[in-house]
Amino acid sequence: MSHPLLAEFPVVIELDVGWSDMDSFDHVSNLVYFRYFQDARLVYLDRVGWLATKRELGLGPILKSTNATYRKPLKFPDRVWVGVRGSDILPDRMTFEHKVVSRAWDAVACEGTAVIVSYDYRNECKCAIPDAVRQRIEEMEAQTK
Amino acid sequence: MSHPLLAEFPVVIELDVGWSDMDSFDHVSNLVYFRYFQDARLVYLDRVGWLATKRELGLGPILKSTNATYRKPLKFPDRVWVGVRGSDILPDRMTFEHKVVSRAWDAVACEGTAVIVSYDYRNECKCAIPDAVRQRIEEMEAQTK
Amino acid sequence: MSHPLLAEFPVVIELDVGWSDMDSFDHVSNLVYFRYFQDARLVYLDRVGWLATKRELGLGPILKSTNATYRKPLKFPDRVWVGVRGSDILPDRMTFEHKVVSRAWDAVACEGTAVIVSYDYRNECKCAIPDAVRQRIEEMEAQTK
Amino acid sequence: MSHPLLAEFPVVIELDVGWSDMDSFDHVSNLVYFRYFQDARLVYLDRVGWLATKRELGLGPILKSTNATYRKPLKFPDRVWVGVRGSDILPDRMTFEHKVVSRAWDAVACEGTAVIVSYDYRNECKCAIPDAVRQRIEEMEAQTK
Repeated sequence: MSHPLLAEFPVVIELDVGWSDMDSFDHVSNLVYFRYFQDARLVYLDRVGWLATKRELGLGPILKSTNATYRKPLKFPDRVWVGVRGSDILPDRMTFEHKVVSRAWDAVACEGTAVIVSYDYRNECKCAIPDAVRQRIEEMEAQTK
Repeated sequence: MSHPLLAEFPVVIELDVGWSDMDSFDHVSNLVYFRYFQDARLVYLDRVGWLATKRELGLGPILKSTNATYRKPLKFPDRVWVGVRGSDILPDRMTFEHKVVSRAWDAVACEGTAVIVSYDYRNECKCAIPDAVRQRIEEMEAQTK
Repeated sequence: MSHPLLAEFPVVIELDVGWSDMDSFDHVSNLVYFRYFQDARLVYLDRVGWLATKRELGLGPILKSTNATYRKPLKFPDRVWVGVRGSDILPDRMTFEHKVVSRAWDAVACEGTAVIVSYDYRNECKCAIPDAVRQRIEEMEAQTK
Repeated sequence: MSHPLLAEFPVVIELDVGWSDMDSFDHVSNLVYFRYFQDARLVYLDRVGWLATKRELGLGPILKSTNATYRKPLKFPDRVWVGVRGSDILPDRMTFEHKVVSRAWDAVACEGTAVIVSYDYRNECKCAIPDAVRQRIEEMEAQTK
């Protein structure tokens, strides 16, 4: 279902590159890769229950920083897999690694990371990653080791 | 400050066309005009207090339908005025007229409308436009008549 | 593969609603439906060879007007089918009908139309729809009648 | 006109935060900061003639990598200045530094960098930054030293 280059990524989404994703230089806009990253990352955060804790307790994720390195230009039509996995899981923050693999290139088109901090939206301060969320993250990551 | 073509529009925002707003056909994406419309419309909705009633009472606007007709292609660099005015103000809905005027063309680049319905987000049903909001709308519209 | 509500649509794309597609009102942004429309429409235009005639001869499609009516709010996570079909095929223009069907609602979430004009990008004037393109459109549309 | 925090940035654009720029967490989407960065950077690239050399000679800029660090959440309504300046100007590449300053916070909301490589789009290979472009970059940067 996924691609061999993403074997160690517990969450992989698959999507068609849209014509709308391209910019005036006629390839996929560098901005859109961050949307791909984010859409995969939010599937991950949803599965580990971190969106639910935000909704119910105000304890949610917040993005501290992110980056991308562009390897191959993408164009419509193409289809990509977008993988996400956790790393550097600290008490109050963690890093996500993102990788976009193109069917047309059969190679990585873009990769990057995102640092997510655990945030108490009601009291407006950092907080520890909720225990149940941390446990689900560890289970997710253990699947691919 | 505004443009003569927008003399009858009580709210006009002004913005530079961004390079990012263009698509693969090398002019401003048809999608982006709806962002221009919306950004002007939300300034209007904010001024008449309709965002405040949503936040405080759950009584807010919801978009029923919208449309755009494209007159002139826009390109970076350019600067546009985006006007919005109300019309057909009914008990539970109203129409907004949108017009985008380009400095480079000195003409209308795009125009359209949006039908907004008054919605009770807590009880999930339509409702009358809140009185204070309606009064502010009538005052805003009276200014340009 | 597709949805019964889209039985008469010759081109249907399928995609997951992304978290990024939602706006500050916490449902899919009205702007994003136009991206869904456009991504489906461009798959259609690509299949009938209208992007190739633009690339090779400068004879391509241009959007004259578009509209959308919102039926049901969409939220992440969900999966949608986006159908597109041609209608009113005139010598120099045609209309596309768009329909977005939600898996979560099992119903139409949004529908709209787009009027596309045939344009000679090199000579900057309207032109007839290229014959080969017109023939492919008629074949595509005949499949679902 | 600009903000003291951007005194050393030769190009600064100013723009109103749009309601559409916010995401489902009710502050400006992390994706949108990259649009702010890019819109400022393309004004810079346009001024130094690098878009003209792409159009006329096929010698243009290409993005290798980019990153952002988020300091303060932005919300509509607000107004921001987005500064860009060059650094590490090498024969075939350079780095741009980006900084977004918020009027509401009177502080930096976001900062990041972008590495741009000089690319020969016709022969599909890296190339030296065109001389006239390099000279204009050096003049631009000298203004703020």
